[in-house]
Amino acid sequence: MDEALSYADDHFDSFVGQLEDLLRIPSVSTDSAYDDDVQRAAEWLAEHFDEIGLQHSEVVETDGHPIVYAEHVTGDDKPTVLVYGHYDVQPPDPLDEWDSEPFEPTRRNGSIYARGACDDKGQMFMHVKAAEAYLNGEGDPPVNLKYVIEGEEETGSMAVGPFIEENAEQLDADVVLISDTAMFSEDTPSIVYGLRGLAYTEITLEGPNRDLHSGNYGGAVDNPANALSRIIAGLHDENHHIAIPGFYDDVRDLTDEERATYADLPFDEEAWKDAIGIDAVRTEGDYTALECLSARPTLDVNGIWGGYTGEGAKTVLPSKAHAKISMRLVPNQEVEDIYEKLEAHLKDVVPDTMTLTFRRLHGGDPVLVDPTAPPMQSAKTAMGEVLGTEPVFVRNGGTIPVVADFQDTLGLDSVLMGFGLDSDAIHSPNESFGIDRFQKGIQSIIRFHQHYAASNGSTT
Amino acid sequence: MDEALSYADDHFDSFVGQLEDLLRIPSVSTDSAYDDDVQRAAEWLAEHFDEIGLQHSEVVETDGHPIVYAEHVTGDDKPTVLVYGHYDVQPPDPLDEWDSEPFEPTRRNGSIYARGACDDKGQMFMHVKAAEAYLNGEGDPPVNLKYVIEGEEETGSMAVGPFIEENAEQLDADVVLISDTAMFSEDTPSIVYGLRGLAYTEITLEGPNRDLHSGNYGGAVDNPANALSRIIAGLHDENHHIAIPGFYDDVRDLTDEERATYADLPFDEEAWKDAIGIDAVRTEGDYTALECLSARPTLDVNGIWGGYTGEGAKTVLPSKAHAKISMRLVPNQEVEDIYEKLEAHLKDVVPDTMTLTFRRLHGGDPVLVDPTAPPMQSAKTAMGEVLGTEPVFVRNGGTIPVVADFQDTLGLDSVLMGFGLDSDAIHSPNESFGIDRFQKGIQSIIRFHQHYAASNGSTT
Repeated sequence: MDEALSYADDHFDSFVGQLEDLLRIPSVSTDSAYDDDVQRAAEWLAEHFDEIGLQHSEVVETDGHPIVYAEHVTGDDKPTVLVYGHYDVQPPDPLDEWDSEPFEPTRRNGSIYARGACDDKGQMFMHVKAAEAYLNGEGDPPVNLKYVIEGEEETGSMAVGPFIEENAEQLDADVVLISDTAMFSEDTPSIVYGLRGLAYTEITLEGPNRDLHSGNYGGAVDNPANALSRIIAGLHDENHHIAIPGFYDDVRDLTDEERATYADLPFDEEAWKDAIGIDAVRTEGDYTALECLSARPTLDVNGIWGGYTGEGAKTVLPSKAHAKISMRLVPNQEVEDIYEKLEAHLKDVVPDTMTLTFRRLHGGDPVLVDPTAPPMQSAKTAMGEVLGTEPVFVRNGGTIPVVADFQDTLGLDSVLMGFGLDSDAIHSPNESFGIDRFQKGIQSIIRFHQHYAASNGSTT
Repeated sequence: MDEALSYADDHFDSFVGQLEDLLRIPSVSTDSAYDDDVQRAAEWLAEHFDEIGLQHSEVVETDGHPIVYAEHVTGDDKPTVLVYGHYDVQPPDPLDEWDSEPFEPTRRNGSIYARGACDDKGQMFMHVKAAEAYLNGEGDPPVNLKYVIEGEEETGSMAVGPFIEENAEQLDADVVLISDTAMFSEDTPSIVYGLRGLAYTEITLEGPNRDLHSGNYGGAVDNPANALSRIIAGLHDENHHIAIPGFYDDVRDLTDEERATYADLPFDEEAWKDAIGIDAVRTEGDYTALECLSARPTLDVNGIWGGYTGEGAKTVLPSKAHAKISMRLVPNQEVEDIYEKLEAHLKDVVPDTMTLTFRRLHGGDPVLVDPTAPPMQSAKTAMGEVLGTEPVFVRNGGTIPVVADFQDTLGLDSVLMGFGLDSDAIHSPNESFGIDRFQKGIQSIIRFHQHYAASNGSTT
């Protein structure tokens, strides 16, 4: 372990340069205009695994974007760690709000600014560099390593589920290790033991068969944009509970212990509000902001559009209006059930003046892991040694759809050892990743492998 | 008059060709990308007035798009007709719904298809050709003619109001004549005696200072797109009355006589719904569809946008959401008063999680004219002679802001003798104008000048 740590420190500058090379590839998975770049990122990564000396790496083609698979298996007696990450990124828009080019990584204030710097190229690449540090600085790692790095995390991980199912034997492991989450704060490092699920939809209302003159037709023709607004407004009640019938049926209540833990976290709500420029929070019923951010379900409009959106005034009564609406789910809600409940509700409330189109864009089930399990404790030890502060176990409001797949298909728990911070602005303009956290992440992963190997790979 | 009518018939083919030349100039006033084309259309028209022999024509520069002014004044004893029209057009989008290019006029089914074919290049040009028919076929017309043809009708006629005020003496006339409206139907020709007003606004809600990850922030951050939907939904009550306090204070009630006239009009509601592809109308309270289309005020979203509107899924909680919202007004509502009431209401309902920006984009007051006045009767006679059916007097749901200016500044009533039909699809893809109506319009205008001159230009 010590030689691996030394190697990582000695070669850290070149590690950063290599990450920047990867960040220059605009692997935006949701927009087909970037398909070639997504492919290029996968090939770059597979070649990189080869170069640092892994036994095997390959680009696995799928119905969507390819998966990069790599492995280094050196002992039946060693526990096997399956590392998951993704090389695809969110779209960079709105482009005019970036202070530097999203795909030309720029270092300032101790961070690298680029789309994907934190989510997830930077965090995923820490695992690649930890393997290199063992292989080139010390020898075979104390664990067997398998890597599943996908290219569709930002669009619903459609290919990785079937890939896991079809390759269950090859992917046999003891635990999954993932760095794709944020720490509670710089001063309060954390390990995630719960994730929210996601059900992401797109709805279209169509009224008249063409855009109409609002003077000639306004007054007797129901307007799809107004109707869509009515429907969206009706998706919450006045206490900001979600008003879809049956939506909360399967929600596991927070335990008293969990609520006490939330209350103990050093959450500075004023500073949090200041950082995102809001004067007031809006939460569900009596739940605290922190509870609502990770342990309660949500419903948000992610995009809305219809009619004339250009410069100036156009007196049009639009034919259609559209919204992307997604819900974050908590245990024990299930994506398919929620899709059905929303669709049934929309069909119930859509006025007879409109036709409704409902599309399920992508989803993932929520997850909870037992924080007392040995790999969770190994992660806690490793991070504590590197950061000087023992991490706390927290739930995260985001969704990593594949984590539920690993649980359902392979029976594997996932250790979510992330090094992001909220200020990294993932999914937003000016995404960044602290260069020091990139380094500490690599160190923590090197230590995790050693501690987990020492625990004999027990998972219970 | 007879020689003028013969001239118009003999030269009709070339009239159509000249109109097509004008339609080829994409004079979209609301989008600055077309500024040069708007200027070009003005110059084309001023030169055309010269070519057909008017005494004077000029392109009058303004703070916005230019006004084309022309006149032919040949006798103190003749009544003076001030013709108003506009050479600017609506944007052509959505472009992919046009069957032929919007700025390459195409003849099919007896109509010319092009943006502006009916609104208002085609109808405005009838007045130019009527003048030419007198000047080149017969001699000086029986009336003095003045033309104010503006380039900002589709964006609020900002320049023409000041122009009228500054040139009141030059514009001195007995009546204003305008063709920028539709007939009730092909079988029921009509003259418009009332117009709705317009108050067009753009509102922006800003919540967080940047787009946020919906997983990391969803649950405690109020979403501007959801909040905008709530606000828009609250602008109508369940009976589709507009729920802005005081909105109806100045609305002149329909008289029993007017309601009886509306009921007598041969309105085939089923055919009307079929034509625009809707299964049901949505009207205010107990008012009929026809009443709501022209004699009751409305509120419509003309455009709405915010968040991610591209392909696929982006899990963003948007920083901002926007809507263009306009209201059609009826006598005796006033634009400024309605702007103030909407703004006050929005400030009242905007949640403390958001900041509101409210912009007044453009407006025009509503208008009512006495149908028994001599110029209205001259128009009725002229149209009846040409069309073989006496026109009825109706109200129109659209807005021509300058009509209120002519009334307020010059004390002039406007005769709204339009030849459009709803099926002309103005403001929509595949706008068109029937070639026969272009011809009958020219004939009706020639006859109007004669009849109005014979009435000695009396306006009361």
